[in-house]
Amino acid sequence: MNVLVINAGSSSLKYQLLNTEAGQVYAKGNAERIGIDDSFIGHQEGDGEKEKLVVELPDHRTAIKHIFEILEKVDVPVDGIGHRVVQGGWYFPESAVVTDETLAEVREVAPLAPLHNYAEADVIEICRDLYPDLGNVIVPDTAFHYNMPEHAWRYALPRDVADGLHIRKYGAHGTSHRYIWKAASEFTNGACHKLVSCHLGSGASLCAIDGGKSMDTTMGLTPLDGLIMGTRTGTVDPATVFYLQRVGGYTVDEVDTMMNKQSGLLALSGVSSDSRDIEEAAEAGDKNCQMAMDMFCYRCAQLILEMAQSMEGWDTMAFSAGIGENSDVIRAGVCEKLAWMGVKIDPELNKVRSGDVRRISTPDSKIDVLVVPTNEELMIALDVEDLLGDK
Amino acid sequence: MNVLVINAGSSSLKYQLLNTEAGQVYAKGNAERIGIDDSFIGHQEGDGEKEKLVVELPDHRTAIKHIFEILEKVDVPVDGIGHRVVQGGWYFPESAVVTDETLAEVREVAPLAPLHNYAEADVIEICRDLYPDLGNVIVPDTAFHYNMPEHAWRYALPRDVADGLHIRKYGAHGTSHRYIWKAASEFTNGACHKLVSCHLGSGASLCAIDGGKSMDTTMGLTPLDGLIMGTRTGTVDPATVFYLQRVGGYTVDEVDTMMNKQSGLLALSGVSSDSRDIEEAAEAGDKNCQMAMDMFCYRCAQLILEMAQSMEGWDTMAFSAGIGENSDVIRAGVCEKLAWMGVKIDPELNKVRSGDVRRISTPDSKIDVLVVPTNEELMIALDVEDLLGDK
Repeated sequence: MNVLVINAGSSSLKYQLLNTEAGQVYAKGNAERIGIDDSFIGHQEGDGEKEKLVVELPDHRTAIKHIFEILEKVDVPVDGIGHRVVQGGWYFPESAVVTDETLAEVREVAPLAPLHNYAEADVIEICRDLYPDLGNVIVPDTAFHYNMPEHAWRYALPRDVADGLHIRKYGAHGTSHRYIWKAASEFTNGACHKLVSCHLGSGASLCAIDGGKSMDTTMGLTPLDGLIMGTRTGTVDPATVFYLQRVGGYTVDEVDTMMNKQSGLLALSGVSSDSRDIEEAAEAGDKNCQMAMDMFCYRCAQLILEMAQSMEGWDTMAFSAGIGENSDVIRAGVCEKLAWMGVKIDPELNKVRSGDVRRISTPDSKIDVLVVPTNEELMIALDVEDLLGDK
Repeated sequence: MNVLVINAGSSSLKYQLLNTEAGQVYAKGNAERIGIDDSFIGHQEGDGEKEKLVVELPDHRTAIKHIFEILEKVDVPVDGIGHRVVQGGWYFPESAVVTDETLAEVREVAPLAPLHNYAEADVIEICRDLYPDLGNVIVPDTAFHYNMPEHAWRYALPRDVADGLHIRKYGAHGTSHRYIWKAASEFTNGACHKLVSCHLGSGASLCAIDGGKSMDTTMGLTPLDGLIMGTRTGTVDPATVFYLQRVGGYTVDEVDTMMNKQSGLLALSGVSSDSRDIEEAAEAGDKNCQMAMDMFCYRCAQLILEMAQSMEGWDTMAFSAGIGENSDVIRAGVCEKLAWMGVKIDPELNKVRSGDVRRISTPDSKIDVLVVPTNEELMIALDVEDLLGDK
């Protein structure tokens, strides 16, 4: 099945056309600065060069039309569309076919992720409207965590408030963690039972996966919680928000922006939100960058054990996403701290760069340590096939 | 040395007169409802009956005068006064003699703990004024954590904001954790090297203590963070505060009150903030109470491993304070979850009730598990002796 995967933001839209069987990517790209000036589409076919197409993109509808026009030239028929949805809220324990009802649900839960869900719902509606013959599927990034045990998802807030306002741990990166589990299972021939999945990108989260089920995760009500990220604080005393408002004189929106966009590795390093820049500067002797790296690895190791504890054991950990797949320095930093738990990696294997699933632990490591290039688009496409394919 | 230990709140004041050598408590009590109506002093001498003295207490000054009058009858000369101070902020890596300067510092850091520090500073001033011959010592509850490694105390907020507003992890219960370390060291004849100290009361925190030094702790900028407590949420996604203000329509003060006073075990159980009531109701089949117990133990086990990770190992854990010293059910619940880490307790030893330091782990447990009745007052008195005693 050939699936178009769409990941819509408020002013951008990423797409990928791929085949579910071979995972072959026919084309991919991104529409940027939608509704702003200087909009463009970056497009790439197969392993070809990336082209930049300067086009007016006053709205998402225009962007989608352009993308379908471009894809017509690729000459691969689109059989269905999968939409990444950031927040599935209190609906969607799994992916779901788009209907009037499920689309309304995406909008209903939007207050939990206002910057994303409204745009995503709009894009789904445009696709239905423009291409009524194509089926659409909602793939919420929270679905994988929906059935976590209650002791993991519930917050110790007044029950009427928490339940009335639907406040709980939703987590994120569910599609990626689900893919990582699948790939780790396949790679180990089913020897992986209790996996700590480490999706370490500019957004970063861990997930405890026991027999394929999410048992706990480090992100919370929103993707702000847990690990230190590119520009996000991760976990801090929630009273920090009160203090910043009262003593710092910031508004709630300013605190939100500060903690989501101006904190994390960017704030600690003073250099960049990109771990590659920070690694480089740390190597050159920059102390703030070294502290940023140390803190990232320190928190990562602490939270890995929180995840292991949620399963009362672990046998496998997998590094994934931008940092997890590419930074041997961070992988080594995290694993060194876990040496007392029997984690042992081979420095040579750790240095290998590859797009394949691979093992970096030594044969005598108590924990199997893998690097798993994640592939959320393939996972989304497989869900589309599952829900829309011939049965 | 005979030390009067004072723990002042905004409308209450606890005191204890004790001897540093034997730890003998000559008298103790609490002045309640200061500045409100129906004020009284509860007073107890040695092992005697507790008396309730109904007295007008329009202010702290009157309360202190009354307490000194009462103590005159005890006929033990007071040699010095130790003041528990909740927040030492960016001063006080250790306890300090009261001077104009140190008293000003207690007030300077008060925005971090406005409900406590101002009252404490006032009480110190009153004591100096009324009894100029007596030395006073400030014993901040944060001092023990002051020299934690930077990777543990720093938050990933913009450096100018964090450093300018003195936002960091301060922790609390430092005096108790320090005492627990001391007692555990003595009990094990120095065999305790890496201790996870569990101060579990209506306020609850863990501390990783390596060779007597605090390496990390679960409370943060304020005592809201970390474990689920009697009425506090503990760690939740800080974005919960944004969401409650925006979507819930609560003011920042209302969110603060909710998260500090109406959450935690009280909110989960719907019954009480007191773990004894919750245990009882859970045993009788109340599902919300069972969930409250489960969540408390779940988070406790997770955070115990966070603390162990901060030391890259552990050999000893100690349960202390109201819940830690008295609830064999919670101790068993936490330890069971840690069985995969080699924690093994003897159910019979766990059931023993006693005021003594005791071991509850089996000989083959990988971790030495102790119950340590805490004694913050003695620790404070020892600091007073250390700073004011004959040298």
